[in-house]
Amino acid sequence: MTSAPATPRHARGQHAQAPGYADHKADHVARLNKIEGQIRGISRMVTDDRYCIDVLTQISAAGRALQEVALGLLDDHVRGCVTDAARTDPAQAEEKFAEFSDTLRRALRL
Amino acid sequence: MTSAPATPRHARGQHAQAPGYADHKADHVARLNKIEGQIRGISRMVTDDRYCIDVLTQISAAGRALQEVALGLLDDHVRGCVTDAARTDPAQAEEKFAEFSDTLRRALRL
Amino acid sequence: MTSAPATPRHARGQHAQAPGYADHKADHVARLNKIEGQIRGISRMVTDDRYCIDVLTQISAAGRALQEVALGLLDDHVRGCVTDAARTDPAQAEEKFAEFSDTLRRALRL
Amino acid sequence: MTSAPATPRHARGQHAQAPGYADHKADHVARLNKIEGQIRGISRMVTDDRYCIDVLTQISAAGRALQEVALGLLDDHVRGCVTDAARTDPAQAEEKFAEFSDTLRRALRL
Repeated sequence: MTSAPATPRHARGQHAQAPGYADHKADHVARLNKIEGQIRGISRMVTDDRYCIDVLTQISAAGRALQEVALGLLDDHVRGCVTDAARTDPAQAEEKFAEFSDTLRRALRL
Repeated sequence: MTSAPATPRHARGQHAQAPGYADHKADHVARLNKIEGQIRGISRMVTDDRYCIDVLTQISAAGRALQEVALGLLDDHVRGCVTDAARTDPAQAEEKFAEFSDTLRRALRL
Repeated sequence: MTSAPATPRHARGQHAQAPGYADHKADHVARLNKIEGQIRGISRMVTDDRYCIDVLTQISAAGRALQEVALGLLDDHVRGCVTDAARTDPAQAEEKFAEFSDTLRRALRL
Repeated sequence: MTSAPATPRHARGQHAQAPGYADHKADHVARLNKIEGQIRGISRMVTDDRYCIDVLTQISAAGRALQEVALGLLDDHVRGCVTDAARTDPAQAEEKFAEFSDTLRRALRL
């Protein structure tokens, strides 16, 4: 996690407009903030010498919640960025397809 | 994530002594605190309208880091709790085996 | 695994034309046939009382190979079916997005 | 998938006796044979140009079934090989713990 670069968005291959997840932004932030609290709670459980299995149960729950956010973002990205490019700009569409495939590969842990 | 109950540990089926991960406790806490920071950073990326794919890349990294903590705890649990029970108490060993299997099932997302 | 129904394709909500993976069909079939052989080999290892860990190593390899086929099909599906619908038929596009999201959820084991 | 070497088992670090999964051998073989049939069916679906999403649904089912076999073997391995070594041979136990950890890492796709 590095801090956001100071370069303008378009120079980082980003849309100047809202991202694909704009309509669900508040929902994604709320889920992430909840997950942050879950992780903090798990850290406290370890500090308090809580039983391994109880810690692992909470880790599974947090990991699943994180994958739910990823699923939501992948969904938003296909509906927004990928199909927009496919409709308007064949060359950019090819780039979006390849990028989406790489991202799916990481999400599937391949 | 509920707060720790006030009942004594042994009443929650826990060892009164240190948990199986005692030797790696500081390491697990450090990793979890780092993951907490990663999640906070991801939340900020969404707030800042960062590109979907960049957000997803960070989510994959945080999810992987969380699975690394789970692997470490599973490892500690087998070395500690499960084999201790297997050495000393056949009835408790059966319980530990079943509990470990349920936990693995969740970790494998089955 | 049920056998293919006798109903015509379009009645099953399929394209009468080639599927999204048409260009990679031979590659997908070759990979699947290889995986079938891997599974047969794993079954034989168990029959032959081979060591648990060696069997598990082969299961991981076959599972990963299967996820690679899934990734290829997801990729083909987005490039073909999803973006085709997005270009030509907004109502069908919505259906394709929802269907893709459900499929991703299963692939991510959520 | 290579064929079984001709060297004797003990030379490959295996128990001369039955493997950890001996009690569930028939069950594991039956599941694997069923999965082999699932993969063959998926290959046929692709050959028959079946809809991408239907193919992906079957791949998820087969992948999940394969992880169930892995879970069963991991379970048998901990109950058998790992705890046996822990009870009788500290040096071998250390080796078994490390080997189990590596196997879990692969099963969790880390």
